[in-house]
Amino acid sequence: MLKQYAFNSLSAADIEQLVARNTDATHTIQDAVSQIIHDVRQRGDQSLQELASKFDKVVLEKLYLEKEDIEALATTITRDQQRALEIAFQNIHKFHSSQLRRERVVETMPGVECWREIRPIEKVGLYIPGGSAVLPSTLLMLGIPARIAGCKEIVVCSPPQQTGKINGFVAYCLQLLKIEKIYLVGGAQAIAAMAYGTESVPKVDKIFGPGNQFVTKAKSMVQSMANVSIDMPAGPSEVLVVADHTAQPAFVAADLLAQAEHGPDSQAVLVATSVDIIQRVNEELIKQLDILPRAEIANMALKNSYAIEVSDLHQALDFSNQYAPEHLILETDEWKSLLPRITNAGSVFLGHLTPESAGDYASGTNHTLPTSGYARSYSGVSVDSFVKKITFQHISRDGLLQIGSIVETLAELEGLHAHKNAITIRR
Amino acid sequence: MLKQYAFNSLSAADIEQLVARNTDATHTIQDAVSQIIHDVRQRGDQSLQELASKFDKVVLEKLYLEKEDIEALATTITRDQQRALEIAFQNIHKFHSSQLRRERVVETMPGVECWREIRPIEKVGLYIPGGSAVLPSTLLMLGIPARIAGCKEIVVCSPPQQTGKINGFVAYCLQLLKIEKIYLVGGAQAIAAMAYGTESVPKVDKIFGPGNQFVTKAKSMVQSMANVSIDMPAGPSEVLVVADHTAQPAFVAADLLAQAEHGPDSQAVLVATSVDIIQRVNEELIKQLDILPRAEIANMALKNSYAIEVSDLHQALDFSNQYAPEHLILETDEWKSLLPRITNAGSVFLGHLTPESAGDYASGTNHTLPTSGYARSYSGVSVDSFVKKITFQHISRDGLLQIGSIVETLAELEGLHAHKNAITIRR
Repeated sequence: MLKQYAFNSLSAADIEQLVARNTDATHTIQDAVSQIIHDVRQRGDQSLQELASKFDKVVLEKLYLEKEDIEALATTITRDQQRALEIAFQNIHKFHSSQLRRERVVETMPGVECWREIRPIEKVGLYIPGGSAVLPSTLLMLGIPARIAGCKEIVVCSPPQQTGKINGFVAYCLQLLKIEKIYLVGGAQAIAAMAYGTESVPKVDKIFGPGNQFVTKAKSMVQSMANVSIDMPAGPSEVLVVADHTAQPAFVAADLLAQAEHGPDSQAVLVATSVDIIQRVNEELIKQLDILPRAEIANMALKNSYAIEVSDLHQALDFSNQYAPEHLILETDEWKSLLPRITNAGSVFLGHLTPESAGDYASGTNHTLPTSGYARSYSGVSVDSFVKKITFQHISRDGLLQIGSIVETLAELEGLHAHKNAITIRR
Repeated sequence: MLKQYAFNSLSAADIEQLVARNTDATHTIQDAVSQIIHDVRQRGDQSLQELASKFDKVVLEKLYLEKEDIEALATTITRDQQRALEIAFQNIHKFHSSQLRRERVVETMPGVECWREIRPIEKVGLYIPGGSAVLPSTLLMLGIPARIAGCKEIVVCSPPQQTGKINGFVAYCLQLLKIEKIYLVGGAQAIAAMAYGTESVPKVDKIFGPGNQFVTKAKSMVQSMANVSIDMPAGPSEVLVVADHTAQPAFVAADLLAQAEHGPDSQAVLVATSVDIIQRVNEELIKQLDILPRAEIANMALKNSYAIEVSDLHQALDFSNQYAPEHLILETDEWKSLLPRITNAGSVFLGHLTPESAGDYASGTNHTLPTSGYARSYSGVSVDSFVKKITFQHISRDGLLQIGSIVETLAELEGLHAHKNAITIRR
């Protein structure tokens, strides 16, 4: 079922090709997005309203919902569903609350004190995808760290449903987050609106959130055009599962399928210590695939996926680090000893009873993670993503005596005399 | 001398215009850089050698210097200069060493454990500008946090001097950092080489460092084209000085000039609590400008600068936060009470005896900072910039019982049945 390779017969070039993600930056998308951004900048709300009727097939009188609408929608979901969202909220909040700590003052020389202080990014924009799958979990994953960071203004954009509203799950999450307004704007136009501002939608300092190829392209474009930053570049979702003889083939297959059902361009990679394991996982894949509502999507994704046989777990980790997966699952009794060898990954799931779907929803970790190999240099979203750390320094009269001649020497050797004079004049 | 405005007579639109930096994204630059990137990708070292003879006016036999060359060059500077670089190294190292701390494990529910671990970015590229001003201090500011983070491969690129070498200061800093190789590649071609790799220059995961408009444009382009990330977008350097009646006009003028001598596009903004202060600073500017070797550059930058009269220090901070300066200097006795009001700034210099030039070289804080208003959403470079934080989770049998039904409910409401099944199959 899965294409199959043996690590030891792969050349370096083969591996390079296997770990490369398909990044088709088609110009069709770029041109369409460029047009949308231009139009939203020029015509603001008017443009957003027209694009809503074009893409979302809905005529919007106003571009947002407010407190009363949100309250009413939130009551349409069951108490069980509310409770599940509440517990996810609590777990995510508990884990993310531990991420920021006050740092101490460092006296680098007598009288020279340096430190960092945390400040929230004032205005942040959260994009919550809609369309085929509506993702209230993404609203929690972005809204909770924004709240913990203390961001003053949290702008949420999500495409309207055909009712001209949002669904009850998203509404309930807005309530949990104490966010009293949501903008009914989707796609590239939402990113453009938050980057430049319109009559209704405020301009923000940083834009977060996943989305389709249009959203992703828009984020990358406004990042270099407007004075705005983004959480990270985004590509299709992916998982890499490491399995040895202690793994349960049924669990491994279930985890690969959970990835595969995301979309036809998702990738699920199995790295196993024997061909026998691969064989048994393949059998399970066929069995479990049959009963999935999204079987067609999952099947397409599996065609885009593969299995690799390795000699041992260390070789498995070598490949995984080269691949730099968004999600890494270690289905082996030996997970503890492997921890220090993991160098590149977004989020890691340890042992036989820790499926990725736990982290997607409720374990507490964030599910907004680097894809397409960006785990080599990016971390997933955390409270860090919603703050700046500003450096401060204070020098006393004594400190100036200590540091003065050093700065003068260095400024002089770089040929910057006014830099030198800023010290000399104070001495 | 400085253009002058009164805060209370400015409209919101006036302020918006004053805090906007001149971002002329000319297509001439984009086209030239695009061509260079394309050529380096296609022809590798050959292209780098040709560009060196074209732009740096030097024929290079090999594209790098190694240990023995570096050692020899490092002996060409005086002992005093070496000592100044050593002390800067120590201070920067001391402050940056305090930036990483192990985080604790959080049990979000009984049996559900989540935590983050730090991993260095494996391959980093540092760009050290050359040309009119050679900046060994930048090598320290980037190399020290890279070393503390534990990056495996540190690739340094700097344009060759007309001797085909680098200067002794840069060589000595390489020695302090225990970096045994430097690539003699400058400009946009250095960024392209590190983003894609050539026969000589290794491909890296993240590129750091300031540079001219070509370097900056190249960084922004490879960020969206290649699988590489960058430290931050960069624009011309800038300072905002807040001064009240306790300020020494001579100190304020010296700090504004230290900024102005960087380049004709630098901006120095004075925010003062009376027109009298502005007047006296202007007088000092004229006096001090006269004796500067780089007076012509500084004069051009001052034309691009301005002063604002405010009613009080709170209004001063309001303006400063809107401007979001790379460097903020508070020349007032009241600096301590103002600290909590600072929301947007790169690095802050407190009181009358803490000039920016101290932080540029040796106080210990980093001088690679967000410009052009990006301090609203970016922090300066720190050890954080050279690491990822990977999230981990482990769920026990007990934890699975706690969290299982919640994940099932959430997966179901999002319509992701394989996600649900990854839990159900384990229960």
